[in-house]
Amino acid sequence: MFDPVEALKAFIRHPSVSADPAFQAGMHGARDFIAGLLGSIGFAVEIVPTPLHPVILAERKGPASWPHVIIYGHYDVQPADPLNLWSSPAFEPSVRGERIYGRGAADNKGPLLTHVAAVARLLERRPDLPLRITFMIEGEEEMGSPSFPGFLKDYAERLRQADMVLLSDTGSPREDQIVLTCGLRGLVLCDVEVTGARTDLHSGLHGGVLRNPIQALAELCASLHDADGRVNVPGFYDDVLDVEPWEREQLARFGQSEAQYREFLGIPAFYTTKGYTPFEATRFLPTLEFNGIGGGYQGQGTKTVIPSKAFVKISCRLVANQQPEKIRELVYRTIAERMPKDVTYRVIDQHSGTPYVVVPPDRSNTPAGQSPVLARAFRAADAAIAEVFGKSPLYLREGGSVPIIADIKRVLGLDSVMMGLFLPEDNLHAPDESFHLGVMRKGIEASERILEGIAAE
Amino acid sequence: MFDPVEALKAFIRHPSVSADPAFQAGMHGARDFIAGLLGSIGFAVEIVPTPLHPVILAERKGPASWPHVIIYGHYDVQPADPLNLWSSPAFEPSVRGERIYGRGAADNKGPLLTHVAAVARLLERRPDLPLRITFMIEGEEEMGSPSFPGFLKDYAERLRQADMVLLSDTGSPREDQIVLTCGLRGLVLCDVEVTGARTDLHSGLHGGVLRNPIQALAELCASLHDADGRVNVPGFYDDVLDVEPWEREQLARFGQSEAQYREFLGIPAFYTTKGYTPFEATRFLPTLEFNGIGGGYQGQGTKTVIPSKAFVKISCRLVANQQPEKIRELVYRTIAERMPKDVTYRVIDQHSGTPYVVVPPDRSNTPAGQSPVLARAFRAADAAIAEVFGKSPLYLREGGSVPIIADIKRVLGLDSVMMGLFLPEDNLHAPDESFHLGVMRKGIEASERILEGIAAE
Repeated sequence: MFDPVEALKAFIRHPSVSADPAFQAGMHGARDFIAGLLGSIGFAVEIVPTPLHPVILAERKGPASWPHVIIYGHYDVQPADPLNLWSSPAFEPSVRGERIYGRGAADNKGPLLTHVAAVARLLERRPDLPLRITFMIEGEEEMGSPSFPGFLKDYAERLRQADMVLLSDTGSPREDQIVLTCGLRGLVLCDVEVTGARTDLHSGLHGGVLRNPIQALAELCASLHDADGRVNVPGFYDDVLDVEPWEREQLARFGQSEAQYREFLGIPAFYTTKGYTPFEATRFLPTLEFNGIGGGYQGQGTKTVIPSKAFVKISCRLVANQQPEKIRELVYRTIAERMPKDVTYRVIDQHSGTPYVVVPPDRSNTPAGQSPVLARAFRAADAAIAEVFGKSPLYLREGGSVPIIADIKRVLGLDSVMMGLFLPEDNLHAPDESFHLGVMRKGIEASERILEGIAAE
Repeated sequence: MFDPVEALKAFIRHPSVSADPAFQAGMHGARDFIAGLLGSIGFAVEIVPTPLHPVILAERKGPASWPHVIIYGHYDVQPADPLNLWSSPAFEPSVRGERIYGRGAADNKGPLLTHVAAVARLLERRPDLPLRITFMIEGEEEMGSPSFPGFLKDYAERLRQADMVLLSDTGSPREDQIVLTCGLRGLVLCDVEVTGARTDLHSGLHGGVLRNPIQALAELCASLHDADGRVNVPGFYDDVLDVEPWEREQLARFGQSEAQYREFLGIPAFYTTKGYTPFEATRFLPTLEFNGIGGGYQGQGTKTVIPSKAFVKISCRLVANQQPEKIRELVYRTIAERMPKDVTYRVIDQHSGTPYVVVPPDRSNTPAGQSPVLARAFRAADAAIAEVFGKSPLYLREGGSVPIIADIKRVLGLDSVMMGLFLPEDNLHAPDESFHLGVMRKGIEASERILEGIAAE
């Protein structure tokens, strides 16, 4: 079998930044590398073109009576800048202590190779294992997977034959406490651009006769939360899924104190929706945030203009069972109702993502109709993680979004088992990204056991 | 005599942006140009160093029995960005129809050259004119004249010998309706910077636990006006000077309809303090405006961060008899009281300016002790404007600020005659700034008559 750490080093050396056309060669190299590796362990590899970056499909076929698992991953990485903040070059892997440093080490090259290595080892040991495996590895995850829903539709008939998806693209709090992620937040994003006068105005000559678009925008934004920290958009919470008692019980075992979390963030005090702890708020409640705002003069010193335009970038994180299109409509209607009539404005759609939730088996209210293979996978994962990492996994929803998981559910009808392999110290999307090699070693062992547990007896 | 239009073109070609150190050469060029021009018409020119940009002092001396007028102007200009909104390059003068386009054409290079040309012509015609003239031309007006009060103090003994100041750095409504400006608003400027977490955060992983600094800023800004459009800062209006009946009578002759003004601004509706027309509001009332706002991601598309910082640039325009330091204290106290305690913030002082008011002679309540030269200048200006422009001037306070006018009054005890030469269409501080060449031509004629009227008989 190949050496997983050496493979990860080789994978990191391909600078596969999907968002930047300058990294075309790195995208190509990373794609060829992972495709070659999968070919070398006996998979039939297809490179599926999309409007942008191809998807890799690699199959181990077998009779229809065998369970069929899709392993998802992505070969693209975030941009590495600011490069000067890296302790070693971003695309030159560097092992220091128990960690390997490099862009993409944790997101997602290390976790993806964890599963590839597990499959390789398992098939070496059990060449006749009754399990169909399809690797589905995309190259646009860090750009919001624009081509992926189209790919899913085109390949739906074939992929729908599978029973479930297994992936590691979520996090865990500590190296000995693995999370099986049971929910992801969705997204609705838009920009709001307010226009006052037809051009920037002298604030002396004209100040006092018109509503400054920054003022209009501030008044709108200030109206979007109430005194209890709730999003003040009528109907916003209508479809929010209740929190199950087992979820609160799991979260109580999370192991980080509020003081530790507050110190990590560096804030004077938390600001959460009344009645929810910070840990609950990020997982169980939707948000409306302002990701950016701009207008007028932003340089040094002063420029006494009344700007013609100002804009804000809004994102809502949604929880199950909120529907992005419904939330988008509610937000837009609220903006329309509250925007002062002495300015004009437009709303610019940005992307959306549906929230996702999967209820693991053996919990109250386990939904009917769940795949028995999925239930077996959860049980195998629970046992494998407990044995390999030394502690039972936690079952938690996460605040982040991986919209393609909901797309897979919607288009293919498949649920996902998400084994969180990256840690808070991994610096995802930031300089000095790294992956913990102990977590990788144990992750290979756990993944191997999970896959063996999914296989037919 | 030199050709005023050609001189203006040459003057505009020096990009004298005082606020931006990158324009050091343009500042130097503009200074040399105007100093050279004044030397060429017989003035004794001094370049007076200051901590930042030098002041030009140019004198025509004479016996103490001659009246003495200071002509004020500034050789610096506003930044020209956004450059892409200019129809022709900002620092390449372009004559189209009756207008000359370029940054600084109206503010203040054209009006300043109007007076230089008038002086040149007058002295050519009457070389022995019994009038002392001092040009006092600064290079920091567009940055709030930080060095000017110090310069005034240093040269007070000499400058106090003068009787009055003449300048054109204010506006008139139409090319046939000139305003003699009787008041200017003051200024108080500051930046407010709000900080949330110690770094930008992933809005999924952490969204819901802290107050976004953009939200904190929006809530603050939204609180600073009440439902009647008044500035909602306790004590803000305490010292505001009452409007005199003659001021309303003058304003009634202003000649622009509200519909015309609204159309000029390009706004759906006015937003003024309740009980005041737009024309009254800009002249007789103070304001609090937002000149710029920024924070988080402002590029194309989306980046789902909770920014660590956000800032707003605030400016208050003050009217007589508000005191800048008192208003600054009231605003800062209000910010401190309203800023949520779950963020941190700092306020960065920017410059201030005192409001100014001068009551022209022959009005009710003419204050005692006004210089007889000033009264003669007002009468000469009234007659000259009526003859040259075809209509008597209006006597109005203006919404803009020229803080050094109040400084001159305070330090030197001198009042100013302000002949408004720029028009609403001149796009001051905005792209496509221009100056009307017909106004310049008539302005030279009027200035010549005014100066001749000030001179001893």
